[in-house]
Amino acid sequence: FADSWKNFRSVAFKAWELGRSDPRKIVFSAKMGLALMLISLLIFFKKPVEELSKYSVWAILTVVVVFEFSIGATLSKGFNRGLGTLSAGGLALGIAELSVLAGEWEEVVIIISIFITGSCMTYAKLYPTMKPYEYGFRVFLITYCFIMVSGYQTREFVNTAVTRFLLIALGASVSLAVNICIYPIWAGEDLHILVVKNFMGIATSLEGCVSGYVNCVEYKRVPSKILTYQASDDPVYSGYRSVLESTSQEDALVGFAIWEPPHGPYKMCKYPWRNYVKVSGALRHCAFMVMALHGCMLSEIQAPAEKRRVFQSELQRVGTAGAKVLRELGNKIKRMEKLGSVDILYEVHEAAEALQKKVDRKSYLFVNSESWEIGNGPKQMKEPHVFLKIDDKSKFQENMSLSQVAIDINLIPISKSWDDRNSNMGFKNIGPAGVRSENMLEKQISWPTRPPKADTVPEEEDAEEESKTYESASALSLATFTSLLVEFVARLQNVVDSFEELSEKANFKEPVEPPAEV
Amino acid sequence: FADSWKNFRSVAFKAWELGRSDPRKIVFSAKMGLALMLISLLIFFKKPVEELSKYSVWAILTVVVVFEFSIGATLSKGFNRGLGTLSAGGLALGIAELSVLAGEWEEVVIIISIFITGSCMTYAKLYPTMKPYEYGFRVFLITYCFIMVSGYQTREFVNTAVTRFLLIALGASVSLAVNICIYPIWAGEDLHILVVKNFMGIATSLEGCVSGYVNCVEYKRVPSKILTYQASDDPVYSGYRSVLESTSQEDALVGFAIWEPPHGPYKMCKYPWRNYVKVSGALRHCAFMVMALHGCMLSEIQAPAEKRRVFQSELQRVGTAGAKVLRELGNKIKRMEKLGSVDILYEVHEAAEALQKKVDRKSYLFVNSESWEIGNGPKQMKEPHVFLKIDDKSKFQENMSLSQVAIDINLIPISKSWDDRNSNMGFKNIGPAGVRSENMLEKQISWPTRPPKADTVPEEEDAEEESKTYESASALSLATFTSLLVEFVARLQNVVDSFEELSEKANFKEPVEPPAEV
Repeated sequence: FADSWKNFRSVAFKAWELGRSDPRKIVFSAKMGLALMLISLLIFFKKPVEELSKYSVWAILTVVVVFEFSIGATLSKGFNRGLGTLSAGGLALGIAELSVLAGEWEEVVIIISIFITGSCMTYAKLYPTMKPYEYGFRVFLITYCFIMVSGYQTREFVNTAVTRFLLIALGASVSLAVNICIYPIWAGEDLHILVVKNFMGIATSLEGCVSGYVNCVEYKRVPSKILTYQASDDPVYSGYRSVLESTSQEDALVGFAIWEPPHGPYKMCKYPWRNYVKVSGALRHCAFMVMALHGCMLSEIQAPAEKRRVFQSELQRVGTAGAKVLRELGNKIKRMEKLGSVDILYEVHEAAEALQKKVDRKSYLFVNSESWEIGNGPKQMKEPHVFLKIDDKSKFQENMSLSQVAIDINLIPISKSWDDRNSNMGFKNIGPAGVRSENMLEKQISWPTRPPKADTVPEEEDAEEESKTYESASALSLATFTSLLVEFVARLQNVVDSFEELSEKANFKEPVEPPAEV
Repeated sequence: FADSWKNFRSVAFKAWELGRSDPRKIVFSAKMGLALMLISLLIFFKKPVEELSKYSVWAILTVVVVFEFSIGATLSKGFNRGLGTLSAGGLALGIAELSVLAGEWEEVVIIISIFITGSCMTYAKLYPTMKPYEYGFRVFLITYCFIMVSGYQTREFVNTAVTRFLLIALGASVSLAVNICIYPIWAGEDLHILVVKNFMGIATSLEGCVSGYVNCVEYKRVPSKILTYQASDDPVYSGYRSVLESTSQEDALVGFAIWEPPHGPYKMCKYPWRNYVKVSGALRHCAFMVMALHGCMLSEIQAPAEKRRVFQSELQRVGTAGAKVLRELGNKIKRMEKLGSVDILYEVHEAAEALQKKVDRKSYLFVNSESWEIGNGPKQMKEPHVFLKIDDKSKFQENMSLSQVAIDINLIPISKSWDDRNSNMGFKNIGPAGVRSENMLEKQISWPTRPPKADTVPEEEDAEEESKTYESASALSLATFTSLLVEFVARLQNVVDSFEELSEKANFKEPVEPPAEV
């Protein structure tokens, strides 16, 4: 007993939480109860009209089926139901007349007509573009069969069809009246909010990625949920995942929103709901780059912290400016404001340019000249042992990774410092290539799982070469991160363009504070 | 008239195409017609039982609603319908007894109970984990209201409830019998096929990306459908897009598949359908890298063709090996075979290793030493004009791009060849940095849209610096491509792991040709 009491309390708590997170759900439930109550009342009170109560089931059915969360969905279902009933009623009456003419073959005609209609309607329903009318086809079939069967028994085809239609109309109007007059919930508004939320989600993911990357935050173990693309509560991951996953939700909402009459801030007759989806699509195109940036964090080939620190301020600046642009666009959509004459991308472009210039000046950090086949200055790679720093070895081992399985490193060698031999080259100020910062020390290492093949017995020289290969890959990962970030900035233009198209078509208002211009 | 004849012919042609592409749809439609025919027959012949034909609508309704494309969906809907009807019937009978006790307040009790039940059920339905039972809640509401209303009028609560339940059972059993006995269509099989298709899609996308990249295939104009993530018939794009979009389809199919009894090749009782989704998720994690690779093709900062050609064979090898692994895994899933003792990743790891080594030896191609602040050898960047090749200028202009808008290049400068000044550095064999291959010549250029700001008036020196910045970015894009490809290979391990988990749990058979082992 105590157990079931605990269960009850936990269920009650969940229900309470659900209501608190979205009070509209409570309102909607109450509205549904009200609509059902009203339709029952009508049927009670109309007792004198025998017919009505006999077919009361149709009215109840209609209310339960048509009463949907948003106005758009209710309208679209109501339309489907009405159209399906009307056309099926017409067809059924026609076939019924014919079947009577058939005389003693009447039953055969009815049964065959049911088979043919059932097959054809089902087949038509399966056609992809018919998807939104799926419900209408079902209603058509139900109505057709019902009128044929019950009409045959009562010989009142017309009466059956008309009563049925009246009751459905009654149910539908009660549903619509309750749903629209009391605290209406609009699909268009939901779509609007969803798009804004997507902007904020990507902004958060972007910031998280960039600041995580420059601060060398690492995943000690990549959650397997991320590896198999399941929902996870990692904030960076869930930010972009929810944007990717919202495609189908957006499609559903836009399908309902176009049914809704002008209302609230959406005062136009043919409001451009599809443009919201387009903006969201352009944002998704940006989100793919954020995903790739996150991939750099998830990858276990990681650039050394020293090198990241060199670009820290520039990367951070681009990340912050990019997130700011996204948030500003999100807010503009929320407030339904036009862009105005300020170039919203100015700051992020400046930041990206600064990053590019820095990359240009410092691109030697991305490469490891030791193994260049064109030679690497006076000191050749034949004598690297002179510069071994044995105490770096243990740190370097932390770098072993999933990714390295791919490049089959069997023995981990030694980091070499460039500092000792840059005199002739004019090099100065290059940090050791393989040293990691402290917060990476606890990382678990997944050693290569492939057993050493006979022809790849680890030799000293082999291993050394592998090490350099790895070093080079690890530094290039920083280059990858910066390129992806710049590409992200480039894709922002596309988001801004889609936004401008939307703001034109939807007649957004001019920004509140006009920028001071000459 | 001729017009409508043409319309009719085009509709008929589409219908024919639909049937040819998936003959199961024709079979399913015929089955639906058959089920409707059978239920109508039953109701006709049972005419003596007055009750049955009076409530015939329930049987018809049940057939139309429960008869779904796959067995799993039919079973799950049938279960929902049965459970909803039973529990609502029980509750309604209880409340009806109570309302009779209430005497003159009976109507009030009934109406209030309808309101409360309606609200509570609707609220419960909105709870996220209740989503699969949404249909059950609807049935519950319909049944409850119907029994209350019609029971009150006829005073035959029990009779109404029982008849209704019997007719629903009749409809459900006709649906199930027809659907399972005649050419059953299994959701599990669909899921299986979908996962295999996803593997093939990613393999095609990967091959397309890599071979497109090394052959310098370019988008003259990136289709706006890609930029806003809409469906497009670009093969590379649609390959990975369909994999991303299939999430919701997979979720739906797995929800139905777990309802299906063991059948065909899926002989276990609790067949691990969720593992198929997991494999697909791991594949999706790989697909993100393919998307990023495609991003490199879409980006308008492009590496020069010469440099790509240097890595051509290695990149191509990794791409081909990666696609081969994906296809092999896909085929193994299709044939339900285990991996066997051969290391499926051996070849692609070797290829990735070769690529990495080449990258290591040639990473000077990724950078532009001219602007290194640490100096770039004997020749300093102060005197680059000596090496101008004016005829390269026009070619270089092709490189202008969307991405460059981000780095605000106002004046396009001149490519510089390294060849002329590599004597002291030991450089040899480096192609000119900015020259593009012929198939890029016709590219449309989107010039920066941002008007020059007062403080960024293009100066000669500025522009030159920009040029180098651009050159550096363009070469780094090749580095990005290779890093992403290596990361893709690393992520393959994860797909193989998920596949092994699946093959264990689902008891896949050992491969047909056992590898020759000692």
